Amino acid sequence: MDPKLFLWFTEYQTKDLALSCRVTRTLHSEQTPFQNLAVFETEQFGRMLVLDNVIQTTIMDEFVYHEMITHVALNTHAAPKKVLVIGGGDGGSVREILKHPSIEKVVHCEIDGAVIEASRKYLPEISCALNDPRVEIIVNDGIKHVKNNNSTYDIIIVDSPDPVGPAEGLFCASFYRDVYAALKEDGIFVEQTESPFFNRDLISRLHQDISGTFPLTRLFLANVPTYPGGLWSFTMGSKKYDPLDVDVADLPKMNTRYYSPAIHRTCFVLPPFVKELLK
Amino acid sequence: MDPKLFLWFTEYQTKDLALSCRVTRTLHSEQTPFQNLAVFETEQFGRMLVLDNVIQTTIMDEFVYHEMITHVALNTHAAPKKVLVIGGGDGGSVREILKHPSIEKVVHCEIDGAVIEASRKYLPEISCALNDPRVEIIVNDGIKHVKNNNSTYDIIIVDSPDPVGPAEGLFCASFYRDVYAALKEDGIFVEQTESPFFNRDLISRLHQDISGTFPLTRLFLANVPTYPGGLWSFTMGSKKYDPLDVDVADLPKMNTRYYSPAIHRTCFVLPPFVKELLK
Repeated sequence: MDPKLFLWFTEYQTKDLALSCRVTRTLHSEQTPFQNLAVFETEQFGRMLVLDNVIQTTIMDEFVYHEMITHVALNTHAAPKKVLVIGGGDGGSVREILKHPSIEKVVHCEIDGAVIEASRKYLPEISCALNDPRVEIIVNDGIKHVKNNNSTYDIIIVDSPDPVGPAEGLFCASFYRDVYAALKEDGIFVEQTESPFFNRDLISRLHQDISGTFPLTRLFLANVPTYPGGLWSFTMGSKKYDPLDVDVADLPKMNTRYYSPAIHRTCFVLPPFVKELLK
Repeated sequence: MDPKLFLWFTEYQTKDLALSCRVTRTLHSEQTPFQNLAVFETEQFGRMLVLDNVIQTTIMDEFVYHEMITHVALNTHAAPKKVLVIGGGDGGSVREILKHPSIEKVVHCEIDGAVIEASRKYLPEISCALNDPRVEIIVNDGIKHVKNNNSTYDIIIVDSPDPVGPAEGLFCASFYRDVYAALKEDGIFVEQTESPFFNRDLISRLHQDISGTFPLTRLFLANVPTYPGGLWSFTMGSKKYDPLDVDVADLPKMNTRYYSPAIHRTCFVLPPFVKELLK
């Protein structure tokens, strides 16, 4: 493309709000059996993975989301060995999980193999750990996988797109019951649960649904600039361990840019307007 | 306007990134001696104040910014009586300051009287405290005001637009020296200092400049969804009090939606990628 020309990619974050990025090159674009998949080179965020016109991850800010969806739970569990990642085809969550020396196996269950392939090719910084011998990749529906694997995992991470289209079934009470059953007796579950500014009813409902299944439910926050409003929530359901009981002074030093032992504690401190959602 | 028709307002947050909101009505638009001023009614954020095509505040999310730019400093000072607000013509900072019973006087120094007038008319929820008898409004350049008022204020809050155009002089070492001189011997200064994702060099430079003048400099964070990336920084320069020494259990109960005693502490806990900027 003529370097003086440029295009904009626009995501409609809601029907009334749009985020647009200058695109210098379309590296990949296809219609998979599940969704539309594109990888753009952008000026602002570097390479960017887009599914059904929604930004999933970018080279510039992926560290926030991937560190926070993994390390908070992994450092809450006493000795996580076997972890399931549902979704997260870019491999970023798998990369972060493998930073923990206790890990023996990561099962990576992604419904759309095309996301994995595009990420391997165009996002090597994110997908780099997918060839690790501890990783088993299963291209299948995560909902089926948890139904068929009882008392198997120490940690289950649901690294999914928004709760519409292929990911809808990952946000409901019956799925949480199956996740509970697929976890060992001290297992922990984490799911990305959208924006406290734009998805207030959803967060309330999910918190209620997860609380209905797990004895301990906790919401935590992080800031992902390419997601609507920047402020993003994650919900943890835990059978035994409480992330607030972790002695953060004892946490191992990790190579991270957003997560830290101090953030492990403060990410659970919610502004009053977010606390309200959990009543 | 025909209710089935709609327009979009687009802010170019950087040359490569744009945020667009559906506008249902333009309530006000003028060229003042200083800047272009508009008030829009938007579907997503309610009424919105825009200066030189940059979103300043909206009914939906103004609480975050106004609570955080004021209460952190006011609750750090032992007994703030006299506060100066530079900029902040919408009145939101003044409204929050007046929630503190110790306050005797708020001097509100805004360079552009048209911002105050438009806010009085179209943003009464934000400007509602500007008629309080403790408030003195001065339509003048804040830089001149601090030069002419030695050892006068307990707290100075710089509630300014981005450091371009009329606000540029509010982000430099000579201004910080004048602010220092305008504060009493235990005074505190707070300034909004942009985004840790998009204004990294600026934050580093301002931190260095403020550290060069004040014995104690601290950066804190909050999440404002209408600002680029959502994550926003504030820098505090203090002559005596350290916000981290505050016994948050002793803080008075306040009617706030983002700020809380717990947030008073956690807003200073920085992710490693932000800490790096302050080295």
